[in-house]
Amino acid sequence: MSIEVVSSNKMFGGWQHQYNHASSVLNCQMRFSVYLPPQASNMRKVPVMYWLSGLTCTDENFMQKAGAQRIAAELGIAIVAPDTSPRGEGVPDDVEQAYDFGLGAGFYVNATQAPWNTHYQMYDYVLNELPALIEANFPVTQERVISGHSMGGHGALVMALRNPERYRSVTAFSPISNPINCPWGQKALQNYLGKDKATWQQYDASLLMAKADKFVPAMVEQGKDDSFLDEQLKPNMLTAAAEKKGYPLTLEMHDGYDHSYYFIATFIEKHMRFHAANLAK
Amino acid sequence: MSIEVVSSNKMFGGWQHQYNHASSVLNCQMRFSVYLPPQASNMRKVPVMYWLSGLTCTDENFMQKAGAQRIAAELGIAIVAPDTSPRGEGVPDDVEQAYDFGLGAGFYVNATQAPWNTHYQMYDYVLNELPALIEANFPVTQERVISGHSMGGHGALVMALRNPERYRSVTAFSPISNPINCPWGQKALQNYLGKDKATWQQYDASLLMAKADKFVPAMVEQGKDDSFLDEQLKPNMLTAAAEKKGYPLTLEMHDGYDHSYYFIATFIEKHMRFHAANLAK
Repeated sequence: MSIEVVSSNKMFGGWQHQYNHASSVLNCQMRFSVYLPPQASNMRKVPVMYWLSGLTCTDENFMQKAGAQRIAAELGIAIVAPDTSPRGEGVPDDVEQAYDFGLGAGFYVNATQAPWNTHYQMYDYVLNELPALIEANFPVTQERVISGHSMGGHGALVMALRNPERYRSVTAFSPISNPINCPWGQKALQNYLGKDKATWQQYDASLLMAKADKFVPAMVEQGKDDSFLDEQLKPNMLTAAAEKKGYPLTLEMHDGYDHSYYFIATFIEKHMRFHAANLAK
Repeated sequence: MSIEVVSSNKMFGGWQHQYNHASSVLNCQMRFSVYLPPQASNMRKVPVMYWLSGLTCTDENFMQKAGAQRIAAELGIAIVAPDTSPRGEGVPDDVEQAYDFGLGAGFYVNATQAPWNTHYQMYDYVLNELPALIEANFPVTQERVISGHSMGGHGALVMALRNPERYRSVTAFSPISNPINCPWGQKALQNYLGKDKATWQQYDASLLMAKADKFVPAMVEQGKDDSFLDEQLKPNMLTAAAEKKGYPLTLEMHDGYDHSYYFIATFIEKHMRFHAANLAK
């Protein structure tokens, strides 16, 4: 499990790094970003917030645009951001190179259908291989929280809902909340998993929340002027599931905000303080 | 002086906008970014911080990566970021399309040499045309402060040193402090201004500071691990000039920090609070 440094930049007293490594789960070279706050050292381990990005993103977008490191440096939390799909030669892409499937659009699932199944195993990568790599190579504890945006908000919710013992809290910005019922989700799930819709349900946050028996504290932020709100995101399905089940979900709708990183930057501090409060419990 | 909106995103309760306009000074279409904090309204005008970016940047880099809007929203300061050169068809570029001259590298000077002089008039654009446009179209006062990075740090210092009545304070990150004595500066100044080095001196912050008779409070941040430090930036020349003249300059060197936006993001809050304190005087 060796990692190779790509870049290192000091930031808020800690370090912003990029690394490459050979992923056996994804069967390709992968890059990830990690922010280590100044508290992290050989003498002191810190918890980790995993961040899952949305369609078209890489490991860089969140680290460059969200302003999260300032808060991480205050709270003593490391941040790890993986890429959004397998990458490199031999990794198949959408035939039309569409932005919403294939490269940059792994949807955090384990593909079962050829030709996708040889590389597109992002669920296992994010759940198992990446945390094992991080915990072996950096001064971090096994205390994990997870957040994400859009496709990554879907990924974060699915990870936490299916593995409540692995995450202390989960938050999402503008998540794809009910992917089996929206165009982005249907395209991805049918290609990666096949036509049997029963297999799609394990990746649908609203369905998973409706039948959850262990709870991970959850917070969701959504802009009311998000152009994807009604067709793709459907947070009302998540709210309905939470209400039905009594799930500890806080979902707030915000006037005027859209789907951009300007929205994420505005509310990331709220989410990181939510995570810190749950880590302190 | 009409402006055309390109994009608008709500952020920290205010608005991040991009606009296009026809610049008569630069003789081309120009784009700029503006952040209006929530305090700005028809009922209340706010002061403006102008941000000048470095080589290769556009109006977007600072707005996406520095995290300044959070602080602007708290302090009630608008931010305006112009592009770093004239743009578009007919605007000449470096023959080798080098990153350090021509497009993306206007150096905030008024070119006197053909073919550059028909468009490359960034000094007048930043000093006169852009503020007039901003003050005519947005709820802002004529209270101005100015900051920048690298080439833009040079630009900010030159603007304030030559026009102390126009700016209440000036700050810079990793500025090109003595451009007549570094490769970036010499290439740009010779091409834009010609071989007579006497004409270069009006764009050299260290020379200007050494002979300043009106003072604008100034703050400079510099990373010690900046790979351009010794060859291109030369902050020691600025410090020497300030000491000789008794100029109110605070210049701090930082262990481990480099030339990147991660460095800017770390210290932008310090600079904006410096500006706010000077605006309050």
